[in-house]
Amino acid sequence: MSSINRLDTPSLILDKKKLEKNIAFAQARARELGVVWRPHLKTHKCVEIARMQLSGTPGPATVSTVREAEYFAAAGITDLIYAVGIAPHKLARIDALNRAGADVKIILDNVPAAKAVSDFCRQHQSNIGVLIEIDCDGHRSGLKPHDPVMIEVARSLTDGARFLGVLTHAGESYNARTTEEIEAAAENEALALTAARDLLAAAGFESRIVSVGSTPTFVRAQKRQGAVTEYRSGVGAFYDLVMAGIGVCKVEDIALSVLVSVIGWQEEKSWIITDGGFLAMSRDRGTASQSVDCGYGLVCDVYGNLIPDLWVKQCNQEHGVICRRDGKPFDVKAYGLDTKLRILPNHACPTAAAFEGYNVVEGDNVTALWPRCNRW
Amino acid sequence: MSSINRLDTPSLILDKKKLEKNIAFAQARARELGVVWRPHLKTHKCVEIARMQLSGTPGPATVSTVREAEYFAAAGITDLIYAVGIAPHKLARIDALNRAGADVKIILDNVPAAKAVSDFCRQHQSNIGVLIEIDCDGHRSGLKPHDPVMIEVARSLTDGARFLGVLTHAGESYNARTTEEIEAAAENEALALTAARDLLAAAGFESRIVSVGSTPTFVRAQKRQGAVTEYRSGVGAFYDLVMAGIGVCKVEDIALSVLVSVIGWQEEKSWIITDGGFLAMSRDRGTASQSVDCGYGLVCDVYGNLIPDLWVKQCNQEHGVICRRDGKPFDVKAYGLDTKLRILPNHACPTAAAFEGYNVVEGDNVTALWPRCNRW
Repeated sequence: MSSINRLDTPSLILDKKKLEKNIAFAQARARELGVVWRPHLKTHKCVEIARMQLSGTPGPATVSTVREAEYFAAAGITDLIYAVGIAPHKLARIDALNRAGADVKIILDNVPAAKAVSDFCRQHQSNIGVLIEIDCDGHRSGLKPHDPVMIEVARSLTDGARFLGVLTHAGESYNARTTEEIEAAAENEALALTAARDLLAAAGFESRIVSVGSTPTFVRAQKRQGAVTEYRSGVGAFYDLVMAGIGVCKVEDIALSVLVSVIGWQEEKSWIITDGGFLAMSRDRGTASQSVDCGYGLVCDVYGNLIPDLWVKQCNQEHGVICRRDGKPFDVKAYGLDTKLRILPNHACPTAAAFEGYNVVEGDNVTALWPRCNRW
Repeated sequence: MSSINRLDTPSLILDKKKLEKNIAFAQARARELGVVWRPHLKTHKCVEIARMQLSGTPGPATVSTVREAEYFAAAGITDLIYAVGIAPHKLARIDALNRAGADVKIILDNVPAAKAVSDFCRQHQSNIGVLIEIDCDGHRSGLKPHDPVMIEVARSLTDGARFLGVLTHAGESYNARTTEEIEAAAENEALALTAARDLLAAAGFESRIVSVGSTPTFVRAQKRQGAVTEYRSGVGAFYDLVMAGIGVCKVEDIALSVLVSVIGWQEEKSWIITDGGFLAMSRDRGTASQSVDCGYGLVCDVYGNLIPDLWVKQCNQEHGVICRRDGKPFDVKAYGLDTKLRILPNHACPTAAAFEGYNVVEGDNVTALWPRCNRW
């Protein structure tokens, strides 16, 4: 246990109390909706946090890379959906996990992928559970909720390739402007997926899993709707400025920050220069299109108290520039050389991915270092 | 040695021939200008590449993190400038390197930092070489070229804190629109630094090192000007779409790319979906403000041949969307499931930082895996 002031910078800081509160909220939310919660582990990629979310059980959970699946399965978290459309060359690694006792399910949205998985299972006597990906809002991949091609996809799942259900992600909810828009996105995602479920059921394919989710729709869903069996949410473990910008959390709920040091000033411009650049913060400018642009992040003191009016205006690779949002002059040298500041990120996922692990902070003490599983 | 087609995706690809050509160009450029070349290793963070740049010598070179300094010094590359204004808590790590035989120089632009370094050197009987950072173009940190505070900074360097010279970075040259603008930036950076050198010399502080540079100004400087002794350049080892956009290289000079796989399509929208998202490409949108916006990257076949008209229009964490730049329909399924494509990055530095190492490619064979030194 050491003081946060003694950390080298830039470092990734995780406020344990806020993390616990955010996780408890999600668990309560799932109970309230009467659904299974399948947290998306891609935001934190950390066994310690997954165990808190899952109360020590083996799942259910969601991952975004095969490497995450390998990392979490090795830690006993084995009920997983790898929620990125499968590239067939990745099946061997998935199969190896399942043979070792995990249950890693995959998703796909096209006939060639279904046939490739079936071919793989036949050739290797493998069993792999498959969900069909549905596109509820035009965000990226998936079949439209009423597209009969999904029946052909399901029929193409043969041998050990087992049809398990349907999955969608209301990715457009991140671009919502009001709570009403998020509530509508939640309703739309549930009803779209229910339509797909019904279309498949009519053709004889029963869905055991009907999986929806995004942090905004999970937080704002009015009720459980349609055939939904489970919700996925990722960034809600930490929250971030994009989520605060759409009203899904408050700025003070954000559990993740980057500790930086003051390395200089441009007094004439009222700039503070720090050692927190874009390799630490990421290049994500997700708040740029929101009603309040937060630059590359908002600024807190070393204890996590927001300093009103300041923001990180620009980043270079290893430099950050802090100034007042309104550009007005202030006493920049009140933030002395080597002063530690904490920067709240626009988007927790890429910011966390810049680091090997979390400095877990309680009060002003670092009480643990939790590793992450980066890359692929 | 194995085929590039057998790599898992996303993976980082380095074209060895292009790398060698880019390095040879930089070495010839330095000879032509009659200056020392001090490559900035922050782009590649890779010992193998640094050795090629330095022809096996111990330097000179530039780094952007203390961790890079530690990594390169351990590999015998010991003549280094850590070119980010010093945070005093980092001095212990710098000092440890210098006591072990390295010569890691630091930079600073203010009196408190100069005093902190001098205090450190007095307390620990240390020797640390110091350059004063000059701001030639308002880009970020540094003292103005005629600011007499620099004399006070130099005077504050006492005990083992040795004044060595001046350094600037023409960071605004990245935003140039024409070759003439870059040539002017090169002239400005050289003359600004010469003015600072002269101001210090008049006060009795002789500069042994007068260090300028950015890839654009290094490539486009018309001649050696003023008191310049050395040029730094980083991204020129790989180049990228931002550099191509300002005419500093051609698209076909770009040595770095990200290998991705096709995982699906949205036929109605003429979208190809890949497994190359923003954790692989980075969120850098540096070409967005250029005359040709390249989205999240341009698209090549697996052998590195540019596919005209295609770009990566959007990225999510682990998904990329490829379409035609003009939005016109095309036969997306001609790019079959699991087809490998190579994406050229906007900005080589953050894209490379997403990976643990480089798959070095000659023709269609992977002939080596070179590690990187990420983080801090």
